[in-house]
Amino acid sequence: MYSFMNDYSEGAHPRILELLIKSNLEQNSGYGEDIHTEKAKDYLKKHIGKIDVDIHLIPGGTQTNLLVISSFLRPHQCVIAAATGHVNVHETGAIEATGHKVVAMPCAEGKLTPAAIQAALDAHSDEHMVQPKMVYISNTTELGTIYTKAELSAIHNICRKNKLILFLDGARLGSALTCKENDLELSDIAELTDVFYIGGTKNGALLGEALIICREDLREDFRYLIKQRGALMAKGFVLGIEFEALFQDNLYFELGEHANEMAAKIADTLKECGYGFYATPGTNQLFPIFKNKLLEQLSKEFIYSVQAKIDEENSAVRFVTSWATTKKSVDALCDFLYDRKGEVC
Amino acid sequence: MYSFMNDYSEGAHPRILELLIKSNLEQNSGYGEDIHTEKAKDYLKKHIGKIDVDIHLIPGGTQTNLLVISSFLRPHQCVIAAATGHVNVHETGAIEATGHKVVAMPCAEGKLTPAAIQAALDAHSDEHMVQPKMVYISNTTELGTIYTKAELSAIHNICRKNKLILFLDGARLGSALTCKENDLELSDIAELTDVFYIGGTKNGALLGEALIICREDLREDFRYLIKQRGALMAKGFVLGIEFEALFQDNLYFELGEHANEMAAKIADTLKECGYGFYATPGTNQLFPIFKNKLLEQLSKEFIYSVQAKIDEENSAVRFVTSWATTKKSVDALCDFLYDRKGEVC
Amino acid sequence: MYSFMNDYSEGAHPRILELLIKSNLEQNSGYGEDIHTEKAKDYLKKHIGKIDVDIHLIPGGTQTNLLVISSFLRPHQCVIAAATGHVNVHETGAIEATGHKVVAMPCAEGKLTPAAIQAALDAHSDEHMVQPKMVYISNTTELGTIYTKAELSAIHNICRKNKLILFLDGARLGSALTCKENDLELSDIAELTDVFYIGGTKNGALLGEALIICREDLREDFRYLIKQRGALMAKGFVLGIEFEALFQDNLYFELGEHANEMAAKIADTLKECGYGFYATPGTNQLFPIFKNKLLEQLSKEFIYSVQAKIDEENSAVRFVTSWATTKKSVDALCDFLYDRKGEVC
Amino acid sequence: MYSFMNDYSEGAHPRILELLIKSNLEQNSGYGEDIHTEKAKDYLKKHIGKIDVDIHLIPGGTQTNLLVISSFLRPHQCVIAAATGHVNVHETGAIEATGHKVVAMPCAEGKLTPAAIQAALDAHSDEHMVQPKMVYISNTTELGTIYTKAELSAIHNICRKNKLILFLDGARLGSALTCKENDLELSDIAELTDVFYIGGTKNGALLGEALIICREDLREDFRYLIKQRGALMAKGFVLGIEFEALFQDNLYFELGEHANEMAAKIADTLKECGYGFYATPGTNQLFPIFKNKLLEQLSKEFIYSVQAKIDEENSAVRFVTSWATTKKSVDALCDFLYDRKGEVC
Repeated sequence: MYSFMNDYSEGAHPRILELLIKSNLEQNSGYGEDIHTEKAKDYLKKHIGKIDVDIHLIPGGTQTNLLVISSFLRPHQCVIAAATGHVNVHETGAIEATGHKVVAMPCAEGKLTPAAIQAALDAHSDEHMVQPKMVYISNTTELGTIYTKAELSAIHNICRKNKLILFLDGARLGSALTCKENDLELSDIAELTDVFYIGGTKNGALLGEALIICREDLREDFRYLIKQRGALMAKGFVLGIEFEALFQDNLYFELGEHANEMAAKIADTLKECGYGFYATPGTNQLFPIFKNKLLEQLSKEFIYSVQAKIDEENSAVRFVTSWATTKKSVDALCDFLYDRKGEVC
Repeated sequence: MYSFMNDYSEGAHPRILELLIKSNLEQNSGYGEDIHTEKAKDYLKKHIGKIDVDIHLIPGGTQTNLLVISSFLRPHQCVIAAATGHVNVHETGAIEATGHKVVAMPCAEGKLTPAAIQAALDAHSDEHMVQPKMVYISNTTELGTIYTKAELSAIHNICRKNKLILFLDGARLGSALTCKENDLELSDIAELTDVFYIGGTKNGALLGEALIICREDLREDFRYLIKQRGALMAKGFVLGIEFEALFQDNLYFELGEHANEMAAKIADTLKECGYGFYATPGTNQLFPIFKNKLLEQLSKEFIYSVQAKIDEENSAVRFVTSWATTKKSVDALCDFLYDRKGEVC
Repeated sequence: MYSFMNDYSEGAHPRILELLIKSNLEQNSGYGEDIHTEKAKDYLKKHIGKIDVDIHLIPGGTQTNLLVISSFLRPHQCVIAAATGHVNVHETGAIEATGHKVVAMPCAEGKLTPAAIQAALDAHSDEHMVQPKMVYISNTTELGTIYTKAELSAIHNICRKNKLILFLDGARLGSALTCKENDLELSDIAELTDVFYIGGTKNGALLGEALIICREDLREDFRYLIKQRGALMAKGFVLGIEFEALFQDNLYFELGEHANEMAAKIADTLKECGYGFYATPGTNQLFPIFKNKLLEQLSKEFIYSVQAKIDEENSAVRFVTSWATTKKSVDALCDFLYDRKGEVC
Repeated sequence: MYSFMNDYSEGAHPRILELLIKSNLEQNSGYGEDIHTEKAKDYLKKHIGKIDVDIHLIPGGTQTNLLVISSFLRPHQCVIAAATGHVNVHETGAIEATGHKVVAMPCAEGKLTPAAIQAALDAHSDEHMVQPKMVYISNTTELGTIYTKAELSAIHNICRKNKLILFLDGARLGSALTCKENDLELSDIAELTDVFYIGGTKNGALLGEALIICREDLREDFRYLIKQRGALMAKGFVLGIEFEALFQDNLYFELGEHANEMAAKIADTLKECGYGFYATPGTNQLFPIFKNKLLEQLSKEFIYSVQAKIDEENSAVRFVTSWATTKKSVDALCDFLYDRKGEVC
């Protein structure tokens, strides 16, 4: 039975594994002060097109989110996020556990807008309320949608105007930057945000996210904060090796592209068959709407998750593809869907 | 130049790497709910000789410490530790960042005693002071010393009597349990402590610590707390595979034994030459005292760290061996030390 | 110019001041272990009709809220509140600063319902999300509305069924329990909630809230937690004296009644004149809707606050009465409103 | 039975009560934005001899300590204090509950020294350890001793040099500034520290501490932080009235002087009789050493506390005098001590 459950079901891309094996018996410095981490940072800076950034490799995404938010805010300050945002819904209160409120704004297709940010600002006017100081967005969003350059620029502008730190969670940035509708480059993101990360876990690494601190005044003492949150790996060179392999050439982007292609095939079939969508498809997460009856059969052949109940008879399902998704499994899913196109709701 | 800096300079033991490679393209469930983690837990339970424990695989040691302490204490409660304890000195206030005081007690050779615990209890008498509720010890300690069964039993008894949770940090438990003076088995530790962990990072894994919660009333909702602290790895199966490889047979103990043997050779040479020690040798960390003049030469051939200044002319140095330490490098270090035995302070 | 801004504009009721003066040169024990606090607790227990409760006198409301929530929840647990709830909106993230998420549910007239609680429970299903463990309500609510006995019982039932701690913020309980529509008594509240407080600050005291912990298993070590949050007053007897004066007879309820009567007069005039309301009147807070043009005149004669913008031409205003509100000032406001009844929107 | 237990056994100085009564039915703005607070700040600035400071009136001392420390430190930073410091010992971990470690340094007579500060700095060298960023001292100290101008200047200098914030807890500043050995003025303290407070609770007020933020870059958004910690009193004018009464003339200093005089009489008797001291007397706290046998008799006539066990036969006792201590009670204690001078240890 093939799983479209998520993009972290398999291990690492073979080229990462090869480099891990090759350097296994080297003696490297601990805590990310090794030569591989150094190389990874250099490659990343080349891809970003900017040398004046601080880069830290962090084991996981929730860790990165809580680290960034708790490090850059003072105690009375909050972060604005989409109500569907990972930090608001899926991190067991990790942000609040560091002392900060997530001000959650309703929004369409998982995307925060300048209007929603302005509404949050307007609602927080004096010292009896938390003070908005950061905006959290993710690209791709929790619903697989992306920000265009125009949209990101507009968010950048309202943040700049109101002295809000703009933080972009790029756990799925590989898929975002290689999808058809994308018009952003890494260098744009480095210009338009104050801090962002490039996710490894969901794009071919065993673990690891590359955090890029663009704004200079946010960089001080950051390694202390990594250590305090338990995110300074003793064998930090493992993260270094992974990102070295991903960015010494274009591997990272090739993996994102593959995931998107696999998803696009499924999306095309879904559209062709007339199935509806809970969120606009475009990247490696798809949210088709199926009759519950269809789900019973689907469950016998594929692994996936249910995103939301639409009504008594229909549900939104989530399919995720990855660097490791095989053409064969995609064909099998497409065949399954095509065969049941009469059951479209 | 060979490094005796720490026991996390190399990657993973080849048998761990092999299993990672072998299972790389399997599709596994996320967040530690996979078959490898299941197997690892089964193997661990066999080694522990006890089925009724909860096991969680956590990426790192500081993370495990902060997770355990913050999960089991109420806000007004504190943990008692040796003044040299890792949680007191080397975690950038990670414990305090979760809201809890570490009550640090002076003690010899890094080892906490019932007398020190009693002194901490006596000093905290009413609601104007924090309430001691947990005791933190590590085996081996920060100074490479170990607890005997009698010592651990005595600590267990005072904890039981005073309703203190006993937590043993086993980041270097592999070395502790395989050293010559040791008379503890894993099953003893599971009987005598309420919660402990078996360190992988410093004994052959890329990362990972196996946390064993012995006491039943401490287990509830623990996965929520792991997630909240950013310690629930998406690809949790990586940790599962590592501990599967370490515990399906005796690999974990063989690796500890090797590290100890390598250290013993160096210790024997040090003793033979008449060098003094900052802490009694016995496991994979050695703390010889050298003239500062000797250090200048040592630095040209070996990598190590300085533990403490003894006086104007002498320093305590730390050498660490590991599963990966080669006989050749040990011989080189022994030769170096032997050649300079005239310079003993 | 008379102020209807809030119910904490004046000092203390004269009978409180008298007792403060009378006992001023007594020597009393510190930290609430004095004879006045003892008496206050006895009087409170008589009014509550229950001896088996723990009572603590706390200086302020936000302090009480953060203390209760942070003391009774484990780190991964959250509190459910109305979106308009004081803990969600008006405490500068005090609850989050102790590590806990406030799950805010939309609701009518400031009142949480069993349906809203159920929706919050349904939305939090696994360890990737916070775990609901407490329900926070206030009586009166932020909009001056009250809970009936049937409503509170229904909330009690869903809490009991789902093992949720029910916490009632009674900062304005004096007004709630003495309003016309009320059918709750203190003894009902002690039966139906697990913990609640009786507000002094907004009903005649200089400062102070009487926290009642009904559920036995929530009482342990609570004085430690009060101290840790900076809420254990050195001169705790000041709080004791105040609550002694308020509850040795019916003063507390008489003060609430007076505030309600003053508000009722204004409400009657507003209704008679045809003004609309933002929330149903009934207690000491009124939220009439006025034309913005009217506000310009109102501001010249009275102090009040603007609650919300209704549309471009109209605003909801807040008037608050208190134990100290004079009949004369109410008459003046009524005259003002009556004179302008032609300007009703 | 007369109590020398502490300096917060009685209510408020009559002149404070008078002003409270006089202004009781005024309508004042809430949250410290009233005319009395304004006046109090003006009077305080006059006494301090400096206009460019921010002043906030906070209900209690532990609250002020946790507020200052948590507001001015980033998460990885710690505060250095004497091991006997109130923040280290007597606040139930209030500082750690806000996330920060107190680095406690051993020291004589409760006084921190530049050498102790330097030792703390030396011991914290990299990102694996907390980063010292603040120094906490109290004047008088927990042992009733004071800092001279030279001592405070020396601490100021080492703080300036190492970019440490210097915070002075003045819960008993009234006694410190009016004792015989004192050579500091309020204006010196405002020059030499970055933030300090003038304690009201222990010098004649019902409650309240006046926090003075001297350094400009520490002032931003401080009211948000007060509110978040539950320290923004609704009836803030109560604090305003108290400090208005204390500082409109020299009342605050007269009260401190009285307390010191009462203590001096007792100290003179103790010295004359040959009793030993646990700490050098000089302010309103005395720590004589008595035979335990003497304590039995003492307890029948006076209330006091035991500070420390000296040996099997002797204990250090604490006597505290205050603005309200009567000459008569002091005479009674002196007579008692004089009558038993044969029992000196």
